[in-house]
Amino acid sequence: RIDDNRLWQSLMALAQIGATPKGGVCRIALTDEDKAGRDQVVQWFRDAGLQVRVDEVGNVFGRRPGTDPQARAVATGSHIDTQPTGGKFDGNYGVLAGLEVVRTLNSHGIQTVAPLEVAFWMNEEGTRFTPVMMGSGAFAGIFGADHIRSQQDGAGLTVGEELARIGYLGDVACGDVPGGAFAAYFEAHIEQGPVLEAYDKPIGIVSGALGQQWYDVTVTGMDAHAGPTPMNLRHDAMLAAARMVDAVNRIALDQAPHGRGTVGHLQVLPNSRNVIPGQVKFSVDFRNLSQTGLDAMDAAMRTEFARLADQCQCQVEITQVVRFAPCIFHPGCVASVRGAADRLGYAHMEVVSGAGHDAVYVHSVAPTAMIFVPCKDGISHNEIEDAKSEHLAAGCNVLLHAMLAHAGV
Amino acid sequence: RIDDNRLWQSLMALAQIGATPKGGVCRIALTDEDKAGRDQVVQWFRDAGLQVRVDEVGNVFGRRPGTDPQARAVATGSHIDTQPTGGKFDGNYGVLAGLEVVRTLNSHGIQTVAPLEVAFWMNEEGTRFTPVMMGSGAFAGIFGADHIRSQQDGAGLTVGEELARIGYLGDVACGDVPGGAFAAYFEAHIEQGPVLEAYDKPIGIVSGALGQQWYDVTVTGMDAHAGPTPMNLRHDAMLAAARMVDAVNRIALDQAPHGRGTVGHLQVLPNSRNVIPGQVKFSVDFRNLSQTGLDAMDAAMRTEFARLADQCQCQVEITQVVRFAPCIFHPGCVASVRGAADRLGYAHMEVVSGAGHDAVYVHSVAPTAMIFVPCKDGISHNEIEDAKSEHLAAGCNVLLHAMLAHAGV
Ligand SMILES: NC(=O)NCCC(=O)O
Ligand SMILES: NC(=O)NCCC(=O)O
Repeated sequence: RIDDNRLWQSLMALAQIGATPKGGVCRIALTDEDKAGRDQVVQWFRDAGLQVRVDEVGNVFGRRPGTDPQARAVATGSHIDTQPTGGKFDGNYGVLAGLEVVRTLNSHGIQTVAPLEVAFWMNEEGTRFTPVMMGSGAFAGIFGADHIRSQQDGAGLTVGEELARIGYLGDVACGDVPGGAFAAYFEAHIEQGPVLEAYDKPIGIVSGALGQQWYDVTVTGMDAHAGPTPMNLRHDAMLAAARMVDAVNRIALDQAPHGRGTVGHLQVLPNSRNVIPGQVKFSVDFRNLSQTGLDAMDAAMRTEFARLADQCQCQVEITQVVRFAPCIFHPGCVASVRGAADRLGYAHMEVVSGAGHDAVYVHSVAPTAMIFVPCKDGISHNEIEDAKSEHLAAGCNVLLHAMLAHAGV
Repeated sequence: RIDDNRLWQSLMALAQIGATPKGGVCRIALTDEDKAGRDQVVQWFRDAGLQVRVDEVGNVFGRRPGTDPQARAVATGSHIDTQPTGGKFDGNYGVLAGLEVVRTLNSHGIQTVAPLEVAFWMNEEGTRFTPVMMGSGAFAGIFGADHIRSQQDGAGLTVGEELARIGYLGDVACGDVPGGAFAAYFEAHIEQGPVLEAYDKPIGIVSGALGQQWYDVTVTGMDAHAGPTPMNLRHDAMLAAARMVDAVNRIALDQAPHGRGTVGHLQVLPNSRNVIPGQVKFSVDFRNLSQTGLDAMDAAMRTEFARLADQCQCQVEITQVVRFAPCIFHPGCVASVRGAADRLGYAHMEVVSGAGHDAVYVHSVAPTAMIFVPCKDGISHNEIEDAKSEHLAAGCNVLLHAMLAHAGV
């Protein structure tokens, strides 16, 4: 079993770097704070005897050799960059849980057959440089390293320049692992949702992650004075958009239990009390566990939006802007997580990740699964993000046992 | 009959003051442009032999004496301030139509029994200083003169200071008219809506104006990550607000033909694509021709919004921010407008003003009616606002004959 207190102390120590007055963390990718956080974790990796490797997009790996020089590594990890008003656990937990696994094995003098690796992936949050999950995406070959290094932030600085500046532009080619691709990859993460807490389970066995399709929608009607314009002569873009928001909800409910539909962003023009809006722009975020389901949502949206635009004498334009395919994690890895939770006697339930994670990209190049632990009120991407030490420890014990099951003792 | 060309030339000349590159006018109340516009109109008033009077809130009156020193004046007017991206006709037409009536009588050497007055009211648009229709409201005793003079713009300048600065802080008490209250008041205005154009009628006999009730609504739910939060555990303020927008439309349609319901302003927090909105603020603008109708709309809104908030596990707060009572114009004055249109052979129809006008306030202290003429595509409060010279001339002829019917020749 891992050392609950040591894990908690490491989390609290890392949370000091970029700490915000409200108890959160601001450690945005490739800033000075990110460099300080990276330096701290690398120092801890070295102290734990890990061999550190940095790849050409700034992903960092700490390797604990196994007894079999031919064996492929069993890996874990997550990210240490945060949202601007982020919390102490999102990402950081997965990295420090991996470190705690190594420290536990060290203090018990346990050698594994296969090597173990703990990774932290560059820029998961995508808040300064888009897209999200940049480092793991490059590792998995979804993005080219050159493309990633040329991405710019709002000030025109590139990922490559900033990696060089903070000393994390490595020379290992993206995806290269000594001895070959990971034999397995496990990622522990806070749930970022309310399900485990609602069901009072410390462990979520993550069987997959929802696919995502994001859209930009523009509804165009005609500005007109709210007073003299009769109801039947209006081209009210606000009314059309409102009905579309309701349709997004209906379409998601039709795809229960895994369908999700959210309109998070909406902007009205000219946005004046007594002017019928001539234009409304909004976002649609659809998620589902199957591509068939996502396709059905896409089709239903196009039909419904066209009908509703017409009903309100408006035009509608839909542009897809983001797409992540649904991901079903590796059954063997998922079984190892379940087996570990059973053996350790933790109450658990199977869940699906609603959010994107580095594991979703790594899954395309290695057998992968995730372990979720509850977070308070399901809140994340917020300075008040919180989690219980006992849940974090439980997840870390599950991680330890799942990794050992694959690495062999 | 009035001189079509002289009316048109005056409109075009006044539109030069504060002209915008896109063909509109920016002559915001109590600015240097407003001063220049006022000076021009006052010059024209004097050239036409009118006696000019300025009251303590900057309303300006030009008086043409009648033959009976005891008779109360028959008045007309409107406003010459504009929206920031306003047009050439809104308000300006009513003032210059009044001037054209006087010029026509002058050139035909016609004396009326009762005096005639042409007014332009201070700050109808309410774009720099709120509320709208400030000068006519003070004239009618709805607002105190001190209160109005103390209103501030965004830079902290008061109406009183700005009136003094541009030389239009007069000494006539608000509401005072030589010889007593107006015997009748007529206001010619572009329709600012699409009805006359749709029915191809040059003249609208305005029988009344819709009452208005405006509200600020705040829907509060709970921010959450769009991915991991199941549909049934959401407190989605956007979904609740969208259903409320649809309800506003339904409530207005239930009050056909005079019910109007508009959500012109809407703001989402935090307004991020993959965050379920925790708060949405929006405006409601309800209009109707009866107070019973407005009360029914208010009650239906409160019931529906509470139900919809509950349905979406949100809270709702409603604050009423503006109220204008419905107004039924004076039957005798309305009949005079209709009689004039009939006599002149213009096609006409009865309409109700959906927008507020100075006439709505003047109506509370004098028998009042309005004359509408079509504007292109019903567009107003816009630089592309446009109207046909023949329609403007028709409205001015109707104004001439309606005024003469009350003033006596
Ligand atoms: N974990 C996480 O917040 N990912 C960002 C992308 C998303 O799932 O909305
Ligand atoms: N005429 C006009 O635009 N009045 C402003 C108030 C309203 O919205 O009716």
